Amino acid sequence: MDELELIQRLTKNLPANDSVVTGAGDDCAVLHIGLADEQLLFKTDAVVEGIHFTSETAPEKVGHKALGRCLSDIAAMAGKPTAALVTLALPPKYDAAYVEQIYAGMRALAERWQVAIAGGETTTNPGQILISVALIGLVPRNRAVLRSGSKAGDALFVTGELGGSLAGKHLEFEPRLAEAQWLAKHFPLHAMIDISDGLAGDLRHLMQASGLGAEILSRAVPISKAAKSQARAESSSKPPLLAALTDGEDFELLFTLSSKQAVPLLDAWKKEFPKLKLSCIGKMTAEPGLKIHDKDGVRQLTLKGYTHFS
Amino acid sequence: MDELELIQRLTKNLPANDSVVTGAGDDCAVLHIGLADEQLLFKTDAVVEGIHFTSETAPEKVGHKALGRCLSDIAAMAGKPTAALVTLALPPKYDAAYVEQIYAGMRALAERWQVAIAGGETTTNPGQILISVALIGLVPRNRAVLRSGSKAGDALFVTGELGGSLAGKHLEFEPRLAEAQWLAKHFPLHAMIDISDGLAGDLRHLMQASGLGAEILSRAVPISKAAKSQARAESSSKPPLLAALTDGEDFELLFTLSSKQAVPLLDAWKKEFPKLKLSCIGKMTAEPGLKIHDKDGVRQLTLKGYTHFS
Repeated sequence: MDELELIQRLTKNLPANDSVVTGAGDDCAVLHIGLADEQLLFKTDAVVEGIHFTSETAPEKVGHKALGRCLSDIAAMAGKPTAALVTLALPPKYDAAYVEQIYAGMRALAERWQVAIAGGETTTNPGQILISVALIGLVPRNRAVLRSGSKAGDALFVTGELGGSLAGKHLEFEPRLAEAQWLAKHFPLHAMIDISDGLAGDLRHLMQASGLGAEILSRAVPISKAAKSQARAESSSKPPLLAALTDGEDFELLFTLSSKQAVPLLDAWKKEFPKLKLSCIGKMTAEPGLKIHDKDGVRQLTLKGYTHFS
Repeated sequence: MDELELIQRLTKNLPANDSVVTGAGDDCAVLHIGLADEQLLFKTDAVVEGIHFTSETAPEKVGHKALGRCLSDIAAMAGKPTAALVTLALPPKYDAAYVEQIYAGMRALAERWQVAIAGGETTTNPGQILISVALIGLVPRNRAVLRSGSKAGDALFVTGELGGSLAGKHLEFEPRLAEAQWLAKHFPLHAMIDISDGLAGDLRHLMQASGLGAEILSRAVPISKAAKSQARAESSSKPPLLAALTDGEDFELLFTLSSKQAVPLLDAWKKEFPKLKLSCIGKMTAEPGLKIHDKDGVRQLTLKGYTHFS
């Protein structure tokens, strides 16, 4: 049984109650807990030494990443983070100064976004450090932007540039909280997700959640300098477009809205966020499947299809 | 640097905001998020294979314990649990059926207390299984029962029986949610904690939080059958009273209230919870330190002092 199948089995018919508006399967859980104008967002995310960072990673960046990933999920719902709890699972012999620096990285990011660190715990985890962050946030009532809600013909947008995140960005990214809140306030977004599994992977989540397909224009995909320079430096690297489609850990926003809104959005965005690229990379389609347009025409992007780019 | 010192350093001057009513250092964080009549409780707790359970432990009991520990912390604030997120950190090779049974144990407990499991995640943890549960709950505004708030002369009460939990109770305990909510509704509790570190250890937390001492009557301490039978079976075991004072993982409630309330409480308790013992085990004192009265007189119970009982 692979991980996806296990998750499907575990999350089937989970215990629910009246508080649950959106349960497992979106970027955050959405809970109604009695507030007249707002709903609660609830998220946990863990980073593990040897997987999400190494023993060589600067500890401040480990802390930044641990909290930043959760903040990015709150952004993906167009919410505002409130308070975090931090679980530090440490090997029996740990370097206290290293752990304090992990915390320093989290503190700095938390302070920048006015997020409280309201406690947590330390426990023992033989073998490696594991940091799990639990985060709550708030979102205007019934205004959380879900993975579902896209319509055929919707324009598909992505913030920033994609690919090559492991060269550094995955440890330094700024969660797109301000951008997401601004977007949801000024434009009727249909669906949103943050890119953690790679553009193609997370776009499939959006497609699946709305029962739609999508078409991407290859030349519209914003490719990061890191992805380009990696491809130049090593002939064995992924071609830049493939890196942008599949690398993951970009922590950018991928969202849909009515195609009529595309031009007004691009205009307003340039004024509001002149330093951050916003790209219309394609559209959602009634026809299922993920297609990509390039100079050679249109082709289906199957899981195996990625090899065409290499 | 030991763990306690590390925690003190990490939790010093944590980032806060207007939402934080009670931060690190109590059983749960208490947050004001805009509800007129209630406050939010927020807690995380992790169990780790090889520490809190073994590879031989029945998986349903592992799940029960993982969620039960968090529920016990909500109980210790006199709150009502709402929704949980579950982080499953699994070795690369895991037994899917075992993991599903862990979830079954959590589901059963969640359903019994109408707690939603609103999502979570799976991640990789080389070496051993780690399960971290994040839980939110609600408590009437400004009615969360904290560790602080005791007064000199307060009566000190404990539910159930203590000691010997590792013989089985630590995997099967029922969190004292109903009892705690009833207590807080009908009696003006001053302070409360759930016993996870052992009576003596958690009583020290209550003492410290209010700058007080305490006196315990040794004959009033409710000793579990498990602690007694262990002592009979193995001469090398702890004497039963020492087990009750130090074993930990009892997940019973330890609380204080005005001594005037002691008799009315005991009377009302017998009618409400006829099957569960409630014991007045002593009192809080202005004089610092933990003292114990037994047939040989009164003595200070220092950390080293436990050896007197062996």
